[in-house]
Amino acid sequence: MQIALDLARKALGRTTPNPPVGAVIVRDGQVVGRGFHPKAGEPHAEVFALRDAADQARGADAYVTLEPCSHHGRTPPCCEALIAAGVSRVFVGLIDPNPQVSGQGVERLRAAGVEVEVGVLETQCRRLIAPFIKHMISGRPLFILKSALTLDGRTATRTGHSQWITSARSREHVHRLRDQVDAIMVGSGTALRDNPRLTTRLTPPGHDPIRIVVDSRLQLPETSHLINHQSASPTWVVTVAQADPAKIKALQVHAGVEVMTVAATSAGQVDLPALADMLGQRDIQSVLVEGGSVLNQSLFSAGLIDRVMVYMAPKLLGGNDGFGLFTGQGVDHLDDALQLRDFRVTCLGDDVLLEGEVCSCSPD
Amino acid sequence: MQIALDLARKALGRTTPNPPVGAVIVRDGQVVGRGFHPKAGEPHAEVFALRDAADQARGADAYVTLEPCSHHGRTPPCCEALIAAGVSRVFVGLIDPNPQVSGQGVERLRAAGVEVEVGVLETQCRRLIAPFIKHMISGRPLFILKSALTLDGRTATRTGHSQWITSARSREHVHRLRDQVDAIMVGSGTALRDNPRLTTRLTPPGHDPIRIVVDSRLQLPETSHLINHQSASPTWVVTVAQADPAKIKALQVHAGVEVMTVAATSAGQVDLPALADMLGQRDIQSVLVEGGSVLNQSLFSAGLIDRVMVYMAPKLLGGNDGFGLFTGQGVDHLDDALQLRDFRVTCLGDDVLLEGEVCSCSPD
Repeated sequence: MQIALDLARKALGRTTPNPPVGAVIVRDGQVVGRGFHPKAGEPHAEVFALRDAADQARGADAYVTLEPCSHHGRTPPCCEALIAAGVSRVFVGLIDPNPQVSGQGVERLRAAGVEVEVGVLETQCRRLIAPFIKHMISGRPLFILKSALTLDGRTATRTGHSQWITSARSREHVHRLRDQVDAIMVGSGTALRDNPRLTTRLTPPGHDPIRIVVDSRLQLPETSHLINHQSASPTWVVTVAQADPAKIKALQVHAGVEVMTVAATSAGQVDLPALADMLGQRDIQSVLVEGGSVLNQSLFSAGLIDRVMVYMAPKLLGGNDGFGLFTGQGVDHLDDALQLRDFRVTCLGDDVLLEGEVCSCSPD
Repeated sequence: MQIALDLARKALGRTTPNPPVGAVIVRDGQVVGRGFHPKAGEPHAEVFALRDAADQARGADAYVTLEPCSHHGRTPPCCEALIAAGVSRVFVGLIDPNPQVSGQGVERLRAAGVEVEVGVLETQCRRLIAPFIKHMISGRPLFILKSALTLDGRTATRTGHSQWITSARSREHVHRLRDQVDAIMVGSGTALRDNPRLTTRLTPPGHDPIRIVVDSRLQLPETSHLINHQSASPTWVVTVAQADPAKIKALQVHAGVEVMTVAATSAGQVDLPALADMLGQRDIQSVLVEGGSVLNQSLFSAGLIDRVMVYMAPKLLGGNDGFGLFTGQGVDHLDDALQLRDFRVTCLGDDVLLEGEVCSCSPD
């Protein structure tokens, strides 16, 4: 199942609106077939794995990260393919989270005499498709708050110096992360201050997520790297309905830039829950939030943070006047803190990546 | 060597002014002798391990975390004991850091025909005796800054609520840490606000470190738990030479309380480098600093932090108005950040312990 998970991850960020899925066929303790779902419209993971295994699938075991489908969608049902290939046993990561089809694939397999075990590495399999589950359940994308922090919780020194908190290895990891999400989001403050490109810079090249700038007062200059980009993916500038039409028009003339308007809060800011709904309607399942502290705080206050990824560097800045992950007013009592589950650690050279889940669709 | 390290750790906090040392005798792949140095005046680790091994030491291998001594101190030299027992090979964690005897033990062994290998698990062996090395080189104790933090770097909410940031498991780990140090230090603000006992509460019971309160204005009330303690170890209240003699006298009447005066800074605060020297003169090799942010910041500014231990909880408080690890003015530029080396991670249930070294006597 670990191999199936690794296979599924190869297509992370490319399968929307489908979830990433991996499949492995094992016979006599040997892997004889490998497959993953590369993108929507292409065959499912099981089909590739069965093709790879060919004759050897008969009597073999199949490991699939997600329950095989039992319905005719864009492709024929995978259950039938597994049954037709003569697979004896199927190990499933988790049942399809879609309540309308949940369990039907397993039922179909069992009815055909195939032995099925459900819940193999379920935590990892569920985490892998958390964006898909979040989108299906709520109609909104999974928001992943990502930041580089010093050990004393700072994103920049008191003078705003922030390049770089973390090591080159951590920064490369961020580019791999960008490669795996549908969209990447920043606030206008970060866009103005850092003038980032927010592209995926990897060797070999990855895919660029859609770049979203939350810009209530439409301050983004036309000279921004986010406007004048060389990328196959567009930049979306999100502002309020009351924004200056002339400014909107000026940005729209740039190729690959779309200005979207959503409702405003009473404070005249972009209403983030409304934005989340709109992004969900556009089939955005995952959004990587790369700051700054104003946008982070607005998402925190709106209860929109689903996953947190902190790249922590072994540095101390001292003082309490450096920049932090959030700004404004925090909670009064520890009981009101945002509690993360499934907290995990990855060592990245001298840095440490700390990750946790908020979303209830994520593993317990 | 790992077994020898674990043995040495049993006596952490009990061996001052000696370092903790562990020794293991191995014959034909079997551990036949174990020993550690329990406290100053008692025999060294090698002696206990050789006693444990008895006849089986002849022709065996010895693993010792620190170079065996070659000089007559309170006990006869361990080199002679190893040679007399007929040990064939000795694996040494690190050479004695005392430049006056460094290498002499290894030389003596080799002269007697014993094979010696140096540098086995050297990083861990060096880290184990970092307090001893720091004290020997600088005459000052190793200052260990310890704090519980949320993932967004807070020690308490904006209202000061801090119990508890971390889990029961992390808090028990802190008590084990207290058990392993010579002294524990807090500022008067923490002493007044939290009224802590700063004792070691473990089952079975551990040893209480000396409690040190840095109290420049002598604000500690006589009702403090730190004054009215039930502990075999004393409380030291450190203030400036200009402090009110009547107040000093009032505190001195309490059993187990000593008031110490050191030089004042131009701001009228306790001069921490002077305090470090004084503690070193009293053979304090390790000081666990448990806050608050004012004392932490003063130590940071004075360049006195040698090791950092952060117990990080998977929680976010939001805002930038919660309490932090430090207070006042931080560094301007990332190049001026305090860089930690030998950064390491330990998972403690839902929390994560992050540790790093500043002191140049610690592992690279």
